[in-house]
Amino acid sequence: MQSHATPQAIDKVVAEIKRMGSQAHLSRGQFRTIIGAIGEEGTIDQNHLATLDGVEKVVPIMTPYKLASREFAPEDSVVEIGGGKVPRIKVGGKHAVCIAGPCAVEDQTMLARIAREVRDGGATILRGGAYKPRTSPYSFQGHGEAALKWMRACGDELQMPICVEVMDTRQVEQMEKYVDCFQIGARNMQNFDLLREVGKTRIPVLLKRGLAASVKEWLMSAEYVLSQGNNGVILCERGIKTFEDSVRYSLDISSIPVLRQLSHLPVIVDPSHAAGRRDYVPSLALAGIAAGAHGIIVEVHYCPSEAQCDGPQALLPQAFKELMESCRRMAPLLNKEFAPAAVA
Amino acid sequence: MQSHATPQAIDKVVAEIKRMGSQAHLSRGQFRTIIGAIGEEGTIDQNHLATLDGVEKVVPIMTPYKLASREFAPEDSVVEIGGGKVPRIKVGGKHAVCIAGPCAVEDQTMLARIAREVRDGGATILRGGAYKPRTSPYSFQGHGEAALKWMRACGDELQMPICVEVMDTRQVEQMEKYVDCFQIGARNMQNFDLLREVGKTRIPVLLKRGLAASVKEWLMSAEYVLSQGNNGVILCERGIKTFEDSVRYSLDISSIPVLRQLSHLPVIVDPSHAAGRRDYVPSLALAGIAAGAHGIIVEVHYCPSEAQCDGPQALLPQAFKELMESCRRMAPLLNKEFAPAAVA
Amino acid sequence: MQSHATPQAIDKVVAEIKRMGSQAHLSRGQFRTIIGAIGEEGTIDQNHLATLDGVEKVVPIMTPYKLASREFAPEDSVVEIGGGKVPRIKVGGKHAVCIAGPCAVEDQTMLARIAREVRDGGATILRGGAYKPRTSPYSFQGHGEAALKWMRACGDELQMPICVEVMDTRQVEQMEKYVDCFQIGARNMQNFDLLREVGKTRIPVLLKRGLAASVKEWLMSAEYVLSQGNNGVILCERGIKTFEDSVRYSLDISSIPVLRQLSHLPVIVDPSHAAGRRDYVPSLALAGIAAGAHGIIVEVHYCPSEAQCDGPQALLPQAFKELMESCRRMAPLLNKEFAPAAVA
Amino acid sequence: MQSHATPQAIDKVVAEIKRMGSQAHLSRGQFRTIIGAIGEEGTIDQNHLATLDGVEKVVPIMTPYKLASREFAPEDSVVEIGGGKVPRIKVGGKHAVCIAGPCAVEDQTMLARIAREVRDGGATILRGGAYKPRTSPYSFQGHGEAALKWMRACGDELQMPICVEVMDTRQVEQMEKYVDCFQIGARNMQNFDLLREVGKTRIPVLLKRGLAASVKEWLMSAEYVLSQGNNGVILCERGIKTFEDSVRYSLDISSIPVLRQLSHLPVIVDPSHAAGRRDYVPSLALAGIAAGAHGIIVEVHYCPSEAQCDGPQALLPQAFKELMESCRRMAPLLNKEFAPAAVA
Repeated sequence: MQSHATPQAIDKVVAEIKRMGSQAHLSRGQFRTIIGAIGEEGTIDQNHLATLDGVEKVVPIMTPYKLASREFAPEDSVVEIGGGKVPRIKVGGKHAVCIAGPCAVEDQTMLARIAREVRDGGATILRGGAYKPRTSPYSFQGHGEAALKWMRACGDELQMPICVEVMDTRQVEQMEKYVDCFQIGARNMQNFDLLREVGKTRIPVLLKRGLAASVKEWLMSAEYVLSQGNNGVILCERGIKTFEDSVRYSLDISSIPVLRQLSHLPVIVDPSHAAGRRDYVPSLALAGIAAGAHGIIVEVHYCPSEAQCDGPQALLPQAFKELMESCRRMAPLLNKEFAPAAVA
Repeated sequence: MQSHATPQAIDKVVAEIKRMGSQAHLSRGQFRTIIGAIGEEGTIDQNHLATLDGVEKVVPIMTPYKLASREFAPEDSVVEIGGGKVPRIKVGGKHAVCIAGPCAVEDQTMLARIAREVRDGGATILRGGAYKPRTSPYSFQGHGEAALKWMRACGDELQMPICVEVMDTRQVEQMEKYVDCFQIGARNMQNFDLLREVGKTRIPVLLKRGLAASVKEWLMSAEYVLSQGNNGVILCERGIKTFEDSVRYSLDISSIPVLRQLSHLPVIVDPSHAAGRRDYVPSLALAGIAAGAHGIIVEVHYCPSEAQCDGPQALLPQAFKELMESCRRMAPLLNKEFAPAAVA
Repeated sequence: MQSHATPQAIDKVVAEIKRMGSQAHLSRGQFRTIIGAIGEEGTIDQNHLATLDGVEKVVPIMTPYKLASREFAPEDSVVEIGGGKVPRIKVGGKHAVCIAGPCAVEDQTMLARIAREVRDGGATILRGGAYKPRTSPYSFQGHGEAALKWMRACGDELQMPICVEVMDTRQVEQMEKYVDCFQIGARNMQNFDLLREVGKTRIPVLLKRGLAASVKEWLMSAEYVLSQGNNGVILCERGIKTFEDSVRYSLDISSIPVLRQLSHLPVIVDPSHAAGRRDYVPSLALAGIAAGAHGIIVEVHYCPSEAQCDGPQALLPQAFKELMESCRRMAPLLNKEFAPAAVA
Repeated sequence: MQSHATPQAIDKVVAEIKRMGSQAHLSRGQFRTIIGAIGEEGTIDQNHLATLDGVEKVVPIMTPYKLASREFAPEDSVVEIGGGKVPRIKVGGKHAVCIAGPCAVEDQTMLARIAREVRDGGATILRGGAYKPRTSPYSFQGHGEAALKWMRACGDELQMPICVEVMDTRQVEQMEKYVDCFQIGARNMQNFDLLREVGKTRIPVLLKRGLAASVKEWLMSAEYVLSQGNNGVILCERGIKTFEDSVRYSLDISSIPVLRQLSHLPVIVDPSHAAGRRDYVPSLALAGIAAGAHGIIVEVHYCPSEAQCDGPQALLPQAFKELMESCRRMAPLLNKEFAPAAVA
């Protein structure tokens, strides 16, 4: 739409798209509103739409992902996480973010301690698993709703929005009450029912890349969420399976510039799960920022050897703090800025 | 347990395992019953168990997969699919199986026609998708419960058990009423909640390998199902992601002998999804049999160019028939036999 | 050329191709002669060639590999290895082959013993390394020319052609005096100078697939040899690098039907180097035959624990013999036959 | 050796190592000299060596790569490229380098023009191929010795050392007369004879990573060069083969921190060959620097559409200049510095 298009003009276009039997998706950017029309080829009369009031131009999108594509929204999307009792944190465009916390929430005390450490270190969003996807059925599977409550309380106290993994469609309704951001794990990147279900909420979704997913398949999974009307998708590169065995997964650094070109969605990197070892985390985090990512998500633990899950990859609080300082220094070279940490 | 162990002796062992705070898993083979005791290390008193009546020996299992391991059950498992109105078809040990049908159930007429073709060609189990995991949210997603009903009616009429993919935990209860075998697709191989949910049923589960799953991760996913008490797991190799682009996925033929060594579970191959093109399907199917697989699952369509999903990989009925004949000739060289086709 | 084309007609076509500034490659099959014209697009006057005596048709080849393509030679090529003091062994078309022997030639006594075992087991070509490509500069690098002499003497005595790996362009002239077949190892598949150098000889070349080579890159490497006038190329699938770690390399079974479709060249499988462990070798060898390969190359050792190189993958003589019997039984199902073993 | 160890003490240790039947490798760092003793386990009397004058400590190295390991030389190695008519350029430790130029040297005019552009943009070493490893035997294979002469003249004129790929053992002697740095391409990373041959020279070697080589295999290839007495090895990460198809190869960014931990050798990144497209080159180059690499090697062309080889990945001169400016700004954050460009 033209930048001065009236709400009435927008409503009219939406109505016309629906009349043609297609779906209309609204995306309101800083400068303009974009309306996506998703339907069978041939059912949308482009010439008609082009003549409506307030329409700047009609652009057919040739990629299989539509709403996720850069063609659909040429400016970078900025997703906001939080609101209500906690601040809204922006991710995307010039806004870089640091999400940090423990892998799994083990108990309320450890959570409080780690959360405070990561906030003091400079993280603005708190992560922590309530339901854990574990390779073995005999491993610790997370504390479930109890952990959700601890996360919520902790986030509220420290003024940090919280990001928690959702694993099953049946958890969505429950978790919606607690979390500021859903995380979809790598193993669920193509759990299409789950994508649709979080797509129906209006809570942002951190969508991790599947271990064998191509960039295009990943964008198609983002499209599942977007197509349900949830515009708050953040992509997270966390490494792919390759033959190399000196790290757990190979962080696919080239996915960052590829995504930045193909899509308007923000993208961050997870160096912790990629490396699987803490000593490589800072280098990979900085590489992600240098490649153009909008931030990082990292795991931190004050006593990794006692962690019930993924201890070897957790940074110690001091190392996390130093990493954050390096990230803050590097971001401006890439025209980005990390939000100031929440006040103690 | 010893081969002549009484039911009372078995009950006593189970009771003792529970008393120690562990779970007991019963697996009844042709010649002997095996009882798995799953619990924290150190909580199971092996010496005590070894002295109980009917106990032959106590074997600690060192692999992370327990119930799936060859150590747990040295003889091949035989899984039975069907029963009630349709025959029971055996898979495993000396029993090879051919599961065939369309990719997606598109309508009742096409299903009836393809089902008849595959039965006449020699398949004994019918496959067909009701809920389809599609990369794009805009692609055909399956006819859902209607397709389940068509499949059930068609299977009953042709005397073929039916195998249908389940994608979401919320579908399990509904599908349980219709299907003889659940299929878990590659993209859901590590959807742990779904694995647990089908594990709670007593319907066999065809567990496809994830596109980036190692053999050990795959066995851990089988363990999720087994650990819920469902012994009917059949593994299905369907190709992994590699750099090679002349086929859609690379059928990992070596997974067959590896699995045959590590596990007692039956394993079949899916050459259709691996190749992505029908011309390579027969060679890959035969390679699977030669490598020791207990059968194949293939897609067949009388008019692939009209298929709503995966047409290029569907065999024509005549090619399917010829492939089945080759499989039947080859199986005895590997000490296996395909069940006779259902009578027309 | 037409099947009854005269030598004069063939000479005339060759002369005309050269006159146009292109190279002419002759390939004489059982039923007809094919002449390849390799040159810049636009320099070859197809219409003119089509009118020459004895020309059946002129077919432009669109694939980047020309002489290796099925379009160039629709019938399967049959390569002959041996001659002189040892029999000529055919590979390709209906002729399957078994090449066997130790990994490295360690001394004359062990070679003689293993060679006799593999001949008695049914192999018709003897393999053994004189120059060994070792990952470490500190590992045993082979006995060089001494080993070549032992191989030649042993092959002559047992009436088996010999196949030996060449690693360096500077070895080609020397080895030409000793060997019946050059082997190019996986790590040298794109050592283009070496390919050209063996292409200048008229000794057949067993070209192993590179560990990260696509089927198309592999055919391009075959083209390097063929383009020098050496028609005796045999392809050997020996596994590719993937994320799977239960085997050393993943035998890419689908490369067999892909190659059989794209190329007329014979293709065999090397299950020993793929698996890296002897227990998986028989299954992979049979899978190769079932997929359409023209034979196998396997490593055998009477005392693998003492082997200086790759002991864990060497079959014991008895297991080799049993494998050969299985291969002989399976081959006719695929319209192939193994040559009878040399007489003791 | 102790930092104040005399030349006589060093000679004595070397003599003693040789007397024990082992090889002695001298590595002179800024602060201390390290002597490597390579031999069969058990033949080296560590206790005896420890008592010699000037010996600080004796450290057994457990990794399969010895001279390449960080245990062998705890400080970063600094390799010097150039000398004679051109300046010596340092790579390693705090010294970052930019090597740039065309893919292939097509003619003297284009070379002169591109060389001037890259020098003006800030590169200090000139690259350009004389012998080109091409997938197809029908592609341009390079101008050979003529190109070597043009490169030498151009480097001398612009005061830039030159780096040229060597493909065959038979080229080493000839190229030694012209080049300041040998490049070993990815496809020759395990061409062991070639590694040994360049190891015998005292010209630095830029060793690219093989497309399917693990970090450990790569270090073993470096060891081949080092074990011949050539200490001037620079590693170059240039992407590995994965399933991802939006780039040509996946730059394995994690190899940088892994190598920095395991080895003392300098490591640079080649974003051009990894990406295969110029639009992703700057992001990957910066990611490499951020991950800890000692510089970059990039391809530049003023008219990529006319390049005879790899045009799509060549940066335009202006983009190259901007990239160099970004690299110069980023390097200090990683405690590195790019050498000032040669004066025009």
